Amino acid sequence: MKIGLIGLGKMGFNIGAQMLEKQHEVVAFDVNKEFTASFENEGGMAAESLEDLAQKLETPRVVWVMVPAGEPTEKVLNEIAGHLDKDDILIDAGNSHYKESLERHKAFAEQGIRFMDMGTSGGISGARHGACFMVGGAKSAFDHIEPVLDDLSVPDGYHYSGEGGSGHYLKMVHNGIEYGMMAAIGEGFDLLEKSPFDYDYEGVAKVWNNGSVIRGWLMELMEEAFKGDARLDDIKGVMHSSGEGKWTVESALDMEMAAPVITMALMMRYRSQEDDTFTGKVVAALRHGFGGHATEKSGEN
Amino acid sequence: MKIGLIGLGKMGFNIGAQMLEKQHEVVAFDVNKEFTASFENEGGMAAESLEDLAQKLETPRVVWVMVPAGEPTEKVLNEIAGHLDKDDILIDAGNSHYKESLERHKAFAEQGIRFMDMGTSGGISGARHGACFMVGGAKSAFDHIEPVLDDLSVPDGYHYSGEGGSGHYLKMVHNGIEYGMMAAIGEGFDLLEKSPFDYDYEGVAKVWNNGSVIRGWLMELMEEAFKGDARLDDIKGVMHSSGEGKWTVESALDMEMAAPVITMALMMRYRSQEDDTFTGKVVAALRHGFGGHATEKSGEN
Repeated sequence: MKIGLIGLGKMGFNIGAQMLEKQHEVVAFDVNKEFTASFENEGGMAAESLEDLAQKLETPRVVWVMVPAGEPTEKVLNEIAGHLDKDDILIDAGNSHYKESLERHKAFAEQGIRFMDMGTSGGISGARHGACFMVGGAKSAFDHIEPVLDDLSVPDGYHYSGEGGSGHYLKMVHNGIEYGMMAAIGEGFDLLEKSPFDYDYEGVAKVWNNGSVIRGWLMELMEEAFKGDARLDDIKGVMHSSGEGKWTVESALDMEMAAPVITMALMMRYRSQEDDTFTGKVVAALRHGFGGHATEKSGEN
Repeated sequence: MKIGLIGLGKMGFNIGAQMLEKQHEVVAFDVNKEFTASFENEGGMAAESLEDLAQKLETPRVVWVMVPAGEPTEKVLNEIAGHLDKDDILIDAGNSHYKESLERHKAFAEQGIRFMDMGTSGGISGARHGACFMVGGAKSAFDHIEPVLDDLSVPDGYHYSGEGGSGHYLKMVHNGIEYGMMAAIGEGFDLLEKSPFDYDYEGVAKVWNNGSVIRGWLMELMEEAFKGDARLDDIKGVMHSSGEGKWTVESALDMEMAAPVITMALMMRYRSQEDDTFTGKVVAALRHGFGGHATEKSGEN
């Protein structure tokens, strides 16, 4: 299939390389011309602009957008939509908020564009060698692109989740689960680290990954991490996040449902980003106030 | 190898059947004579008593105990130890608390018995077809039984974790991680259930299990569960527990370390076991008290 690919970052470039490997024609655009040049070296075609990209595709066009969520996605989708015709398929394969995707489904439907909200999982290696897709939008559009998804995913690695918005919501919840699982794994190794025993973490991750109940890809990644750095001495324990865990918790709040484990995982990421907390200062001040308990001076360790 | 097996419950029976399949000789004892008879039908030998079991083994004996943690394990270990000689190997392959195992290492060492604390994971199917073992105790004892562990585990499915107690501690933490992961998965599907979208959970579990970041055995189990009961209508959302999650949290408290995600997962299990809570009554009473907010009458839904 001939596909327009917008965004040649880590995810986009690798998914594009996989498209080429699987014998698809890819016309690609990125604001960074170096990325486009690299992609031409892989055998892809370059577009000068989004208009040029649209012109180089046949109708119904299939345009796969893989740029950072938020502003960049908003800008690209709106601009490319201006160059698309009725029945063209526009796929947002990034991590957009499902509420934005719901709005876009409405807006693009007015133009007759078949918009798809698609969550992509499996990381960079997945993008290159077989990813996982969660797809919402019109069934006719899904049917049209299904052969491509089949090519680019691991076996059984794509799922049509139905109406618009459901794909990105599903990916958001996937990431929320990921936050909770990662926090549990983190706390578990911390319990080993602080224990009276002297564990070989690589060996632990390896055995936990072979036959245990908690085996899975995250544990495989831990085995690799400990292989490279036996006690993770080189890594500071600061946990950043890119939004989907927060959205998951916000969704739980929207629905007024309890999701305390995922919420706690998110809060502990925030905690990790602070060296000291005002919470801590307040509680120490109160303990001093009622019980005369000593406080530590700021700047001391 | 000739092995004495004590305990023919779900785990013990299946591990015994696997031992037989892998050409080990097994002398088995269970307080339930029906279990022993069934095991003889599988090709195992039956012992009349623990003394008889000890007599039917050659020194250094290898005795594998797989009975419920706590009282039954305590009773069995102490009784069989009375029939063992110096250098015999006594394996507690159940879920004993690591502190009990530490005590037993001390006590049995005085008798010259080589005690091993071994965590077993992988569930019943693992016991039958390839399990996962975390083993603490004397290295000489580990070396002696390693060929058996190699036979009974999946490839790379056993790990010698070093000194006495470390095996059961490792298994305990494994289960603690499991609590957190399961809670995250539970909350994730709850977020789908309460969402405005209509998901096919079996399909979701399947795609999450193929190429996604959260793929693993627990997600495979969810796919099977949804295959049998598409919305889990037949299951009440009560989450029981058998101790290891609690011990994990107690260990975090012992070490005064933060493990809030695993702790929250445990607390939510407890919450699920109550239809109503006194916490809830108190908070409702207070809201009524200061704000005149309506309370619901006990017994209403």
